[in-house]
Amino acid sequence: MSISNGSGSELHMNRLKNRTEFHLVQVKNTWKRKTGKGAAQKEHSRLSAAKIYESTTEDEVSWTVVSPIIFTYKVLQSQNLLHPSNDTLVSGHIRDPQQLEAIRSGTNRLKRFVVIDEMVNNLYGCQVADYFEARNVIYRILPLPTTEENKSMEMVMKILEEVHKFGIDRRTEPIIAVGGGVCLDIVGLAASLYRRRTPYIRVPTTLLSYIDASVGAKTGVNFANCKNKLGTYIPPVATFLDRSFIKTLPRRHISNGLAEILKMALMKHRGLFELLEMQGKFLLETQFQSTCGLGSHSDAASLSTRVAIETMLEELAPNLWEDDLDRLVDFGHLISPELEMKVLPALLHGEAVNIDMSLMAYVSQERGLLTEDEKFRIIRCMLELELPVWHKDCTLALVRNALSERLQHSGGLLRMPLPTGLGRAEIFNDTSDETLYKAFEKWCDQLNTKGPEMSQIMGLNLS
Amino acid sequence: MSISNGSGSELHMNRLKNRTEFHLVQVKNTWKRKTGKGAAQKEHSRLSAAKIYESTTEDEVSWTVVSPIIFTYKVLQSQNLLHPSNDTLVSGHIRDPQQLEAIRSGTNRLKRFVVIDEMVNNLYGCQVADYFEARNVIYRILPLPTTEENKSMEMVMKILEEVHKFGIDRRTEPIIAVGGGVCLDIVGLAASLYRRRTPYIRVPTTLLSYIDASVGAKTGVNFANCKNKLGTYIPPVATFLDRSFIKTLPRRHISNGLAEILKMALMKHRGLFELLEMQGKFLLETQFQSTCGLGSHSDAASLSTRVAIETMLEELAPNLWEDDLDRLVDFGHLISPELEMKVLPALLHGEAVNIDMSLMAYVSQERGLLTEDEKFRIIRCMLELELPVWHKDCTLALVRNALSERLQHSGGLLRMPLPTGLGRAEIFNDTSDETLYKAFEKWCDQLNTKGPEMSQIMGLNLS
Repeated sequence: MSISNGSGSELHMNRLKNRTEFHLVQVKNTWKRKTGKGAAQKEHSRLSAAKIYESTTEDEVSWTVVSPIIFTYKVLQSQNLLHPSNDTLVSGHIRDPQQLEAIRSGTNRLKRFVVIDEMVNNLYGCQVADYFEARNVIYRILPLPTTEENKSMEMVMKILEEVHKFGIDRRTEPIIAVGGGVCLDIVGLAASLYRRRTPYIRVPTTLLSYIDASVGAKTGVNFANCKNKLGTYIPPVATFLDRSFIKTLPRRHISNGLAEILKMALMKHRGLFELLEMQGKFLLETQFQSTCGLGSHSDAASLSTRVAIETMLEELAPNLWEDDLDRLVDFGHLISPELEMKVLPALLHGEAVNIDMSLMAYVSQERGLLTEDEKFRIIRCMLELELPVWHKDCTLALVRNALSERLQHSGGLLRMPLPTGLGRAEIFNDTSDETLYKAFEKWCDQLNTKGPEMSQIMGLNLS
Repeated sequence: MSISNGSGSELHMNRLKNRTEFHLVQVKNTWKRKTGKGAAQKEHSRLSAAKIYESTTEDEVSWTVVSPIIFTYKVLQSQNLLHPSNDTLVSGHIRDPQQLEAIRSGTNRLKRFVVIDEMVNNLYGCQVADYFEARNVIYRILPLPTTEENKSMEMVMKILEEVHKFGIDRRTEPIIAVGGGVCLDIVGLAASLYRRRTPYIRVPTTLLSYIDASVGAKTGVNFANCKNKLGTYIPPVATFLDRSFIKTLPRRHISNGLAEILKMALMKHRGLFELLEMQGKFLLETQFQSTCGLGSHSDAASLSTRVAIETMLEELAPNLWEDDLDRLVDFGHLISPELEMKVLPALLHGEAVNIDMSLMAYVSQERGLLTEDEKFRIIRCMLELELPVWHKDCTLALVRNALSERLQHSGGLLRMPLPTGLGRAEIFNDTSDETLYKAFEKWCDQLNTKGPEMSQIMGLNLS
């Protein structure tokens, strides 16, 4: 299968010789192929966006099908998601006014299957149950230990067995996932597979998944000790965001999420970077619950999450199936997958990403893309966000190995996103081994020191 | 996730209030969202087909992503596919001239992972190995017992383990499936999942898969005793057809495939039906190897398979992800899944489909859509093709149960394709239980008889 996000394949088709282009026209229930002239739309007929190209030679006949599928999904920032008066969780994903009316009129009792992370269930399980009780929904809540170690096809199958026992309508009864990124990824894969796709809804409960797993199309599980080796690109029908979940998150997990916000800031938004520099500590302290910290019309928590999501959507929407291998969102993700799996469960995802980004800041400086001052501003910001900037298991051997893996899986090019200033970036294929070695040495020299010493180097007061 | 095959969702988006439409423009490596005016294409910029719609109210902000993914795949009828001089199997799927040139120049040694049905391997395994040897390809052939009973996620995982051990480039080294429909479906699912999609190639070796599994996007495995309950809609990068495989097929399996050809004939091609009436027996006898049977410029085998594939593609291409539930290709597939799974392995897929079609011909006649004469012509044709037209386990209870399942999974409508003549059809939602009962009774009365008796009824000479 070849998939492209534009009209590249169609252009290519037009270059072929001995081929006939067929449009597809439906009259009553029957589709017929028509060449150019015959395809003019008549009354009661329907023209498809798909086309068939037929080629014939003496020995062969071939048909090439070009068929676009349009994915539509919604990311909604709401409040009080679990309050019984809030419609979002049961109907926020519906765009069809008729379907919405049918739900509001309450003709049919709704049915929802919910997969919830075990720890999230301890905190919010009762509220979720109360919500569905209050709304007279037939529901089943399945709590699961959705940790990175359990992120496997076995857990997908377990979910599918329970979904199948419960019974859902594949068109109108979305599966709801409530939890962190691992939970959302596993449930997304299960839903993608069930009856070849069943709609699902993501409700992220960690800061990391709030701004990362929430906005894209990727689902997946680990396999053969490789991160997300199996999965699909099927977006949820909707993601519902509620920042109030973050208030029960351990402080370390808030830092973890801040790493992915910092990623978007470094790649494409200087304003967001400066906000993190100034208000990062405040966000961490107030667990993103603040209604102040900036001007009166906005606050640091809502502004930073909003910009993070908007910049992420900008990069993901045009490249939903990752056909374009040059991706700024890969920043921090070249070395971190290897590191994360190696030391599992010592580092959280965002922590591993941050260590990767920290090293890359040194690579950028070594290449002359960043000044020393800019580099130190980045590292200082990371430390303020209480993120690790160095790790003993991130050896030069691991780095080289990870990059050679990258090379292999990216069509022979390194495609290394690097900051070229604060809040802007480009993708490079020509980082020499010497540059890498020098950057790595300096990175170790400057950052492999105990806290207080490093603080001195950085001119920070971390007390 | 809501998916549509046309511009329905975009139209709907335009009706929303308080929403801003953003286009997406890429400059260097960075995507930026732009409203209408800003999106005008400048030099060195790229405009995406995707869009983001932002809506804000006092309490909420939401983004709706609309992103089209274009699927392109090729179905190629070739000859001597396994002859070392034939390029098709190694490069027939490639459309990019540069990539093709790179392969022809032989700079890099090619690598191919092949999954082959165990029985097909006994017949053709050596030829496949010889082919890759002769072409200096690094290959691994994995023979598996791909029967309906083994069509499970376990077998998918087994394939994935072997693929992972062997190691392939997810962009340029497609997995090749050689076998019947079950094999193609399982391998398709494995490839869809590996690194979120790895290209795969279908080489059907049965008549049924030649004209059915070969042309669509569906992959799948059975689950919880339900047929194809888990799967994806990821088309192969290419399907390579070679009719010579059919010559080693048992006669019963040729009839099995003829059932799906007959389906397309009954639904939308009178000429194909008349060809089967006249030449069906000949095709069965000559195992689709004939180069005669019709006029000099064509032959029955190539004409019938070609028309079957063309009519199938017409119906599948505009509805690749089955968003439209009104599907003529569902003819024969309303009752047969239940019957097939119940009597497994007594009936082959096409046999179960034929029993379903036979009953539906009676329903059509009962509704006045077919004359008695037309109905008998259909049944006679089925018998000529040596297909079962009745089965004791296809009880009225099973029929009713299967139709109520159908109702549940088709948005509350029966969507029953019925012939409205020879070679044309429509979809009906209003078949009453009384009509069904009468049709079923007559079907049993007329067809539940031993061979010779039935032959008399039908006025046939089947000796």
